[in-house]
Amino acid sequence: MICIFVTGGTFDKAYDEIQGKLSFGDTHLPEMLRLGRSHVEVSIRTLMMIDSLEMTDVDRALIVRNCQQCHESCIIITHGTDTMVDTAAALARGVAGKTIVLTGAMIPYAFGSSDGLFNLGSALSFVQVLPPGVYVAMNGTHFPWNQVRKNRSDGFFERI
Amino acid sequence: MICIFVTGGTFDKAYDEIQGKLSFGDTHLPEMLRLGRSHVEVSIRTLMMIDSLEMTDVDRALIVRNCQQCHESCIIITHGTDTMVDTAAALARGVAGKTIVLTGAMIPYAFGSSDGLFNLGSALSFVQVLPPGVYVAMNGTHFPWNQVRKNRSDGFFERI
Amino acid sequence: MICIFVTGGTFDKAYDEIQGKLSFGDTHLPEMLRLGRSHVEVSIRTLMMIDSLEMTDVDRALIVRNCQQCHESCIIITHGTDTMVDTAAALARGVAGKTIVLTGAMIPYAFGSSDGLFNLGSALSFVQVLPPGVYVAMNGTHFPWNQVRKNRSDGFFERI
Amino acid sequence: MICIFVTGGTFDKAYDEIQGKLSFGDTHLPEMLRLGRSHVEVSIRTLMMIDSLEMTDVDRALIVRNCQQCHESCIIITHGTDTMVDTAAALARGVAGKTIVLTGAMIPYAFGSSDGLFNLGSALSFVQVLPPGVYVAMNGTHFPWNQVRKNRSDGFFERI
Repeated sequence: MICIFVTGGTFDKAYDEIQGKLSFGDTHLPEMLRLGRSHVEVSIRTLMMIDSLEMTDVDRALIVRNCQQCHESCIIITHGTDTMVDTAAALARGVAGKTIVLTGAMIPYAFGSSDGLFNLGSALSFVQVLPPGVYVAMNGTHFPWNQVRKNRSDGFFERI
Repeated sequence: MICIFVTGGTFDKAYDEIQGKLSFGDTHLPEMLRLGRSHVEVSIRTLMMIDSLEMTDVDRALIVRNCQQCHESCIIITHGTDTMVDTAAALARGVAGKTIVLTGAMIPYAFGSSDGLFNLGSALSFVQVLPPGVYVAMNGTHFPWNQVRKNRSDGFFERI
Repeated sequence: MICIFVTGGTFDKAYDEIQGKLSFGDTHLPEMLRLGRSHVEVSIRTLMMIDSLEMTDVDRALIVRNCQQCHESCIIITHGTDTMVDTAAALARGVAGKTIVLTGAMIPYAFGSSDGLFNLGSALSFVQVLPPGVYVAMNGTHFPWNQVRKNRSDGFFERI
Repeated sequence: MICIFVTGGTFDKAYDEIQGKLSFGDTHLPEMLRLGRSHVEVSIRTLMMIDSLEMTDVDRALIVRNCQQCHESCIIITHGTDTMVDTAAALARGVAGKTIVLTGAMIPYAFGSSDGLFNLGSALSFVQVLPPGVYVAMNGTHFPWNQVRKNRSDGFFERI
């Protein structure tokens, strides 16, 4: 059983057609797993639905606590890309003995051209086979939490 | 560097609008990797473009020979789902010391509702971390080649 | 109130993932009108779900009879493109005083890249403003039934 | 020959993945007409690329002048929905003897679930058959410029 914690980010941004802007509604995770015909047993919990630029230390503490307390030892966290590495660091300090993979998207899933489905397939696979630790899964690769940064000019994650 | 061998299958079926039926054109792999914003170095080679129900022993021998002779030790094979397990068995008999992951799709990538992008993200991740051996990556899971079959009534791969 | 008769054709072809081939299920018309946020009152009736190459004289007689007997004077018929012009001729001989617009698609709606939604928007608009008569609405244009043919080599309808 | 003036609006909003927000790039019109397999001769000119809430009187005067001066007597204007009716009124006051159809979208075309392709098919059809005048084509319907308003609570255009 794999636990998926949803925190928002571009991954789950939707278009609010009445307001004419991006917003957050329900997570697209269940629909995406159905589309991928995933047969992996998962439990999905939405912890928050926010842009990761607005994530506070209190929010991060909540994510850490949920990872500590959940029964599963394999955890995926969907997260905005801008501060994904910060949350990975907080998790590395606070959670031991579990495999935690953070992933996200550069384009909202609701857009036809999203990288979200690819990244979800990737994160779900990495989390099943990597040893305990905290990782970022983006761009088809997994990075240990302390060897990665987002290159904000081209949008790709890179090894440091 | 990961080697991707394309053999056709539902994954790459396209709709021929002049003939009004499904057909094979060029592979969608490069476009899919672009969409997934993959930064993994890959070499893509199209070995054949066929429905896996029409794959012969000669075709399988060609796939095995290519896997033996390529320089890469990590190989993904896109393949029709109907005989994916047969090709996996041929590869297990013929190739040693490499990590080979077969994947495919139940719905053509060209359809909006395809599982192909999810499966590609999954296969690309598994191939980077699994020990040498031959595996099928479908439905979010990896199966050793001799512990899997396709359930033809519901379309899912299951452990045997 | 506009009457929409569904007869199948590429428009409504779906992909049967268990059989691995194109097939017909339920029509996509209600979903397409929802997507187009159409507020036009319509009644949708599925007369048949077939490839228009397999349409017989008996099938055409059924379509003609339904157009004669329905209460609405504005009718859209979704139809395979190969024999759309033949059915238009049968309708011109058999139905008077109504505006009938036939439309279809070169690519199934279920594919992301379909022309179906564009053609439906077009047919729905033409049928509201054209005088009584039988028309084909394809490629952004309306053609009187006796001034059109499908060019089978390039897939476009052209004036004759 | 039909003239299409692009002014922006939700229709052409794109997702800027580096900034993580909606933005305007090039218009999607040519791609959409290709997808719809339109064979109608059109000339596309981008007058501006703005949210219609930010459209000023100077912008409207520019649109009016372009409609007056172009050679074509059939004109489509893609426009944000929020002030589409205001621009229609300015056009009705300033342009005579031409058929002008304004259309737009509630969801950006770049999203898979957009009404844009349906609306474009609709506008392109209405403009070919309606008598001179200024119209709004939304929700599968055409409205004379002075008999329509956008219902901001449900997002639909309605007759007044």
